[in-house]
Amino acid sequence: MKKELEKITPLEVDFAKWYTDVVKNGNLMAYGPTKGTIVFKPNSYGIWEIIQQELNKIFRQKGVQNVYLPLLIPERLFNLEKEHIEGFNPELATVTKVGDRDLNEKLFIRPTSEVLFADLFKNSIESYNDLPLIYNQWCSVMRWEKTTNPFLRTREFLWQEGHTCHSDPMEARKFTRTMISTYAKFLQKYLAIPTIVGKKTPHEKFAGACSTYTIEAMMKDGKALQAGTSHYLAQNFSKPYQITFKNKNNQLENVYQTSWGVTTRLLGAIIMTHGDNRGIIIPPRVAPVQVDILELFANKEPKVKEVSKQIYDQLSKKFRVRVDASDKTVGFKASNSEIQGVPLRIEVGPRDLANNQVTLVRRDTLEKIAIDINDVKKTVTMLLNNIHDNLYSAAKERLDSRTVLVKNYDEFKEKIAQNYFVIAPFCCGSEAEERIKEETGASTRCIPKNMDKPGKDVECIFESCDTKTARYVVFAKAY
Amino acid sequence: MKKELEKITPLEVDFAKWYTDVVKNGNLMAYGPTKGTIVFKPNSYGIWEIIQQELNKIFRQKGVQNVYLPLLIPERLFNLEKEHIEGFNPELATVTKVGDRDLNEKLFIRPTSEVLFADLFKNSIESYNDLPLIYNQWCSVMRWEKTTNPFLRTREFLWQEGHTCHSDPMEARKFTRTMISTYAKFLQKYLAIPTIVGKKTPHEKFAGACSTYTIEAMMKDGKALQAGTSHYLAQNFSKPYQITFKNKNNQLENVYQTSWGVTTRLLGAIIMTHGDNRGIIIPPRVAPVQVDILELFANKEPKVKEVSKQIYDQLSKKFRVRVDASDKTVGFKASNSEIQGVPLRIEVGPRDLANNQVTLVRRDTLEKIAIDINDVKKTVTMLLNNIHDNLYSAAKERLDSRTVLVKNYDEFKEKIAQNYFVIAPFCCGSEAEERIKEETGASTRCIPKNMDKPGKDVECIFESCDTKTARYVVFAKAY
Repeated sequence: MKKELEKITPLEVDFAKWYTDVVKNGNLMAYGPTKGTIVFKPNSYGIWEIIQQELNKIFRQKGVQNVYLPLLIPERLFNLEKEHIEGFNPELATVTKVGDRDLNEKLFIRPTSEVLFADLFKNSIESYNDLPLIYNQWCSVMRWEKTTNPFLRTREFLWQEGHTCHSDPMEARKFTRTMISTYAKFLQKYLAIPTIVGKKTPHEKFAGACSTYTIEAMMKDGKALQAGTSHYLAQNFSKPYQITFKNKNNQLENVYQTSWGVTTRLLGAIIMTHGDNRGIIIPPRVAPVQVDILELFANKEPKVKEVSKQIYDQLSKKFRVRVDASDKTVGFKASNSEIQGVPLRIEVGPRDLANNQVTLVRRDTLEKIAIDINDVKKTVTMLLNNIHDNLYSAAKERLDSRTVLVKNYDEFKEKIAQNYFVIAPFCCGSEAEERIKEETGASTRCIPKNMDKPGKDVECIFESCDTKTARYVVFAKAY
Repeated sequence: MKKELEKITPLEVDFAKWYTDVVKNGNLMAYGPTKGTIVFKPNSYGIWEIIQQELNKIFRQKGVQNVYLPLLIPERLFNLEKEHIEGFNPELATVTKVGDRDLNEKLFIRPTSEVLFADLFKNSIESYNDLPLIYNQWCSVMRWEKTTNPFLRTREFLWQEGHTCHSDPMEARKFTRTMISTYAKFLQKYLAIPTIVGKKTPHEKFAGACSTYTIEAMMKDGKALQAGTSHYLAQNFSKPYQITFKNKNNQLENVYQTSWGVTTRLLGAIIMTHGDNRGIIIPPRVAPVQVDILELFANKEPKVKEVSKQIYDQLSKKFRVRVDASDKTVGFKASNSEIQGVPLRIEVGPRDLANNQVTLVRRDTLEKIAIDINDVKKTVTMLLNNIHDNLYSAAKERLDSRTVLVKNYDEFKEKIAQNYFVIAPFCCGSEAEERIKEETGASTRCIPKNMDKPGKDVECIFESCDTKTARYVVFAKAY
């Protein structure tokens, strides 16, 4: 490898530069040969694989079945749902040729697969007995974004997209909400990321959806990152795509649909929620390597290798463990483990061994803990949980302390300028929303779910707006 | 679902029609909206997911690290390796537009990723200390084939592609062979498919490779299916793409490379190796559902649900188990389990329960076995292994009995016409190979690895060829 331990710009100095420095290191990514694309290297792809495994387990309990649908969407199929087309058209990578031959019809690389699932569902459902039908796929999608940023916004990204059909609109609405709270719990439990759960305003909802739910996370610079969405599609696709079922009265009816997804943006969210000036810190439950064992001065003390092996055998049944037995310096080994964000490392060296001890070093606090070699397994189990809890608490405290309810538009502008999450009564009009964005850089993140309402007939925060509202909305600058 | 229990054409009557009938049933696939593409439905995608899991475990032990590289290859990058381009050019799906805008450069959807990995490796390797570098990715690739057939040859398919760099050509050659025998063992142990391992002739090798190894399986109609390949690329890519490392003498040298892959063709191989006139039979170790529990007349006897639950709880810790508690008829439930190829089903009904028994039905032999309900777990464990062994033995016996060594070209033609695998001394000349294919429909499958050689200076089997040869080659009609 190229020397990986390059200098990382301190995040206090330049957050954007810090982020770029972090992602270029730690075996996380490389730029792809097409602008706006990246290579997911082993350390980032490893996190994604664990996210897949854990989400698959959760999905299975909800009756989700995994499938794989084609990459390409013929133009005629895409053009049936108007709002959907308008939302995606400018970003569609389009296949027009094979070899030297021109194709008769344009083929779009999927930006999302609603219309492909619609085409499949159309021929898969007969009666209410076949419903609900709950499919999911893991794949890559393409959206030709103008401005890109590794993991956060790339022209090709990886995701899962769930698509369901229901016989009953209430059941479908409920499933939409179930999935968004599933994501919120997943981010808390596995990624140590707290989020605000809520509904998107009409202006921010998914092109083609009736309503969109979102989880919004706060990055270390105070900006928001949309970390997962769940859409209630109603019959918006099932009508133009003619997805019908026979209901209990033996009448043909269009199905009610949902779709929901999380993407490799989550890797960016992990970095910007937990990372520090030494690089990424990976939450233990999704870390490809949970524990690094560093052999120190093994050439001088044969017991080092012996104890390292013994610890590896003990831990590797339960944890993902790696051994660094190279002849690099102690400092290099430690930095290498740190820059890759491995949550815990165990230093096995002659001095500690003389006391029958090894040293554990936490990646989050950098605290060093000398323990008896017989206590390793017990201590590692405890520390990995502690690290998770500590990462979550720090992120939660930041989210809570940097989310404020404002009284007027001046205060709104002031807090947005300081990168706060701002809660304010808002009319949810698209024009007001666009003008606020122009004036402050903030967009609406969501109408939060678990929050008291302002009461009826409160004035909208936007100063030029006369509309009364009964809703609080969260605003922030966002990735 | 549409009624799935459609009639399947007997395989003895029309093998091709039988195959089409099988794949359209059993929740295996649907045709995609673009010609030549398919949807992998839960039962086929489920097999693929288990293949992924099991191969990942095996790969990890060989030091493989998973990554994900971009879908698109810019034209300038693709055009550096001449043989590779010529092999793939006519089949390349090409992105020329985004939205309404024309791109400056054509972008090809990857038909394979040698050149993308080359571009990554170029910037990832400094010295011999960084080698070997062993990467793998799971993704979809696209090759615009003229004739397509579900799973066997589709314009988009799923696969894994491993790519490695080595400092030493011998080590790289050895790794190439290691991977092909890894695949052979995997097919035997997990898919119950025996194969012939060997080397491709120059005419059949991968475009860009120095040598290609293959595993060749025999389908129930006697035709061959190439089930996995491993290529020694030598420096064919590392030279044009300038992938260098500093060797132990501190001199810059080009790396030695390999690549290797298996695809969703394996799903077709499973069907055509084990399937019967009731549909697919899935080998137990890769079956998404290993055991179906059918509740029979549960409305008449409350004990049915109780025992079904008890069996489910016992088995589901160790096996992938599904319960059919629907109110469908006994016959429908049984056929439904059979057409989906579930290796074993347990029928829980009042009559058996009166004797404290349940009935186990094997999908391979259709044998019914009444057993005491206390013996279920033990018997299921044994039977699933038996089913695997039985499927493998039947396939192995077919492969052995239908592979013949021929003495002259007349016998060659006769045996090929009967869909045998034919072993013959062959000069390995490309022209002779093409003419044999024109005359008989057979292509060379491989120069087999574990087979006695004919001795030096034997005549080539092709009657118009005067060349002497010391090699046996396997010929067959192939998918």
